[in-house]
Amino acid sequence: MGWGDLGAFGEPSKETPNLDQMAAEGMLLLDFYTASPLCSPSRAALLTGRLPVRNGFYTTNGHARNAYTPQDIVGGIPDSELLLPELLKKAGYTNKIIGKWHLGHRPQFHPLQHGFHEWFGSPNCHFGPYDNRERPNIPLYRDWEMIGRYYEDFKIDLKTGEANLTQLYLQEALDFISKQQASQQPFFLYWAIDATHAPVYASKQFLGTSQRGLYGDAVREIDDSVGKILKHLQQLGISENTFVFFTSDNGAALISAPTQGGSNGPFLCGKQTTFEGGMRAPAIAWWPGHIPAGAVSHQLGSVMDLFSTSLSLAGLQPPSDRQIDGIDLLPVILQGKLIDRPIFYYRGNELMAVRAGLYKAHYWTWSNSWEEHSKGIDFCPGQSVAGVTTHTQEEHTYLPLLFHLGRDPGEKYPLSFASEEYQRAVEHISGLVQQHKATLVPGQPQLNVCDQAVMNWSPPGCEKLGKCLKAPESDPKKCSWPH
Amino acid sequence: MGWGDLGAFGEPSKETPNLDQMAAEGMLLLDFYTASPLCSPSRAALLTGRLPVRNGFYTTNGHARNAYTPQDIVGGIPDSELLLPELLKKAGYTNKIIGKWHLGHRPQFHPLQHGFHEWFGSPNCHFGPYDNRERPNIPLYRDWEMIGRYYEDFKIDLKTGEANLTQLYLQEALDFISKQQASQQPFFLYWAIDATHAPVYASKQFLGTSQRGLYGDAVREIDDSVGKILKHLQQLGISENTFVFFTSDNGAALISAPTQGGSNGPFLCGKQTTFEGGMRAPAIAWWPGHIPAGAVSHQLGSVMDLFSTSLSLAGLQPPSDRQIDGIDLLPVILQGKLIDRPIFYYRGNELMAVRAGLYKAHYWTWSNSWEEHSKGIDFCPGQSVAGVTTHTQEEHTYLPLLFHLGRDPGEKYPLSFASEEYQRAVEHISGLVQQHKATLVPGQPQLNVCDQAVMNWSPPGCEKLGKCLKAPESDPKKCSWPH
Repeated sequence: MGWGDLGAFGEPSKETPNLDQMAAEGMLLLDFYTASPLCSPSRAALLTGRLPVRNGFYTTNGHARNAYTPQDIVGGIPDSELLLPELLKKAGYTNKIIGKWHLGHRPQFHPLQHGFHEWFGSPNCHFGPYDNRERPNIPLYRDWEMIGRYYEDFKIDLKTGEANLTQLYLQEALDFISKQQASQQPFFLYWAIDATHAPVYASKQFLGTSQRGLYGDAVREIDDSVGKILKHLQQLGISENTFVFFTSDNGAALISAPTQGGSNGPFLCGKQTTFEGGMRAPAIAWWPGHIPAGAVSHQLGSVMDLFSTSLSLAGLQPPSDRQIDGIDLLPVILQGKLIDRPIFYYRGNELMAVRAGLYKAHYWTWSNSWEEHSKGIDFCPGQSVAGVTTHTQEEHTYLPLLFHLGRDPGEKYPLSFASEEYQRAVEHISGLVQQHKATLVPGQPQLNVCDQAVMNWSPPGCEKLGKCLKAPESDPKKCSWPH
Repeated sequence: MGWGDLGAFGEPSKETPNLDQMAAEGMLLLDFYTASPLCSPSRAALLTGRLPVRNGFYTTNGHARNAYTPQDIVGGIPDSELLLPELLKKAGYTNKIIGKWHLGHRPQFHPLQHGFHEWFGSPNCHFGPYDNRERPNIPLYRDWEMIGRYYEDFKIDLKTGEANLTQLYLQEALDFISKQQASQQPFFLYWAIDATHAPVYASKQFLGTSQRGLYGDAVREIDDSVGKILKHLQQLGISENTFVFFTSDNGAALISAPTQGGSNGPFLCGKQTTFEGGMRAPAIAWWPGHIPAGAVSHQLGSVMDLFSTSLSLAGLQPPSDRQIDGIDLLPVILQGKLIDRPIFYYRGNELMAVRAGLYKAHYWTWSNSWEEHSKGIDFCPGQSVAGVTTHTQEEHTYLPLLFHLGRDPGEKYPLSFASEEYQRAVEHISGLVQQHKATLVPGQPQLNVCDQAVMNWSPPGCEKLGKCLKAPESDPKKCSWPH
């Protein structure tokens, strides 16, 4: 989902009354970022509080390439990483993930091995349908075992766009919350639904209800679901004791727009890029009785902050034996403070850009290759800024491209290299970069090796269902990451 | 000002708390349009309820050219046109215009000749400073006579951007409202301030206060002023008896961005074009006790509707002896109804595009000429949609380019000519076009002839001030309208 997909963020059809209401009752964070322009690395960063380049969710197969966890990926979240649920567990929290895990699907990467008590969802994206010979359909798990597969047991109609998955995930969330409230147990719910990822789907009751087409139907269903979750918390009388945060794991996929992808509002390009459209995300914090209603913050925030903020809420300290990139946002959210901190925009193994205050310096620019672009793969449809949305990887290390995101949120007017403003801002940001790089210890890259033998052929539980498939011979290769 | 310049419409810095509050207390109109991508024609349309092609505010010097009223224009609002204040006058209203008139500056076009009782402002844009030999500075009028000139008597510091004009206009508005309330007279106030037009200015107290630079300072000052006007109405106890509408006369001038021009949010291009960024305008209706707070409407609206709506509020009928293009929006604003009506996007003498429902068909596309574009004149900076943002005038009469503005508000993905959806929508829209053209009687074009002799050399009142200048010989020529 993109920054521009919510009414409160300026979507012209204003079809998200529940999320808009959530913002009106809580805090809108306008300058909130994902940790990567792609899903898996951003989610790994959310749960570890660390940049993907530290926690291993990146590739060195090529320079500045986006990578994720398709089902032939060999790697996943390393045991050495401490995940948010592992830490919360020690403080008595019951942790549940509903939806897409995306941190590796081999047994050692299973979410219940990493601090979650319960899981209802899938390890990978709902791509398909596959033929179960070349490629198996993605399994859905309940806790340790699979209970079926997408397309086979959990229908997604690619023609009509109908699938009731968001309703399943919603019901699962409501039930979990009820159960926790009944047992008076504190809980952490990571509601990581698949929608609005392509192939886009919505339940029958939402199909055709949006001005925006199928994508808008999916947004409306999410909006409705969030409204129901918040209402449920209120009806159970625990809303003032439950911190809720809504955000996205990357910008809207403009390549899939307009029917399968959303909007990044006034920002440049989309998912896969380190322009604002790739990494600035909608963000709303909600906690009635604690967050002043209608608050708006310009704090530079990151999904990694949800790690540190959640620990703080639970009265825990972040681990001190490793670099944590997230910060505790409670002073921001509860008291309106502003904390000075930069945002690092990574694409794979490269630091592409850095934001400090309202200035953003690009050290590298790239949308995607000419080769891909000529095939119609376009992460910036309709947008073209000379020297900025480049189709070759352009290095600007010695003279970074500088934008003022207040005057120019769309990154269309680079500041003159000769200006005093440029000199001052770049000097400041380059100091931050030096500091960052001096202490950076990259993790073992997890997204380099792919092997068709590791695909979801025989997930645990397949025997009971008669759904075990025969894996082919192991044939590990470098994964191919074209952009 | 552009659609994307207000917080309520998604501006990322959210610096318009008063306008956002106005929207929260009133109705946000998300699909509201100017009558032209340029100032004068749009204002003439607002005050006459008629398309510029009918009321004469267009040129035939070239095909599909934007034209306005610079100070060497010979034409102006024809006597045959009936203006809103002329009609309201008959119902006992006192009418005042504060700010830019822009419907011609020769004596016969004076606003007090066309229904206004009072005027404080200027006939033309605050361009300058001029040398008073080649070109005089623009006069400011109080009612019938000038009281000084911009730059000379009313300072605009082009270096610092400081000018207190908006404060003068604000004070004038507050005073007029107080006077009317004291005398229990109904009133029509057309608060047509110059800001945020380039050269952009703001008062000292607002300079440097916006994240967005000088343009943002000007927006903040407008926001603050609107807040003060609304508060004044409340304090005088007449807010429930006063209908207030906020809008703009064209999209943000992206050519002046980022320091002198604003944002059109997710829409394509800006001022001067018939893409959404050129003509979709922010719009808020406010009338406490009558408009349900927090209302949002997708009614296709136009500045011309303010003519018919105002007449309706005053209990008057629109003139029946001529075609009126505006409609009465009261059923929309008060009861949430939706009225089926198209939007016609004219550029000069050409119908460029038509919107019906969520579909928009372009019959002609043009941003500006290659010749201009190669000189750096760009109405779509950073945006380029193949075959859409064309630099030659492209005719699509037989196969209009069709967009679905719900799925694709940015006009980036034309629908396939072969699709059933295309056929159905174009058939419908082409019927509307036929109907429209069949009854269209173009007015005498007012914006064809320019003459340096008619400039503001010796406006009425200049003698008292010793500010009369000698006009050069009359030398009428075709005005040059490059885009």
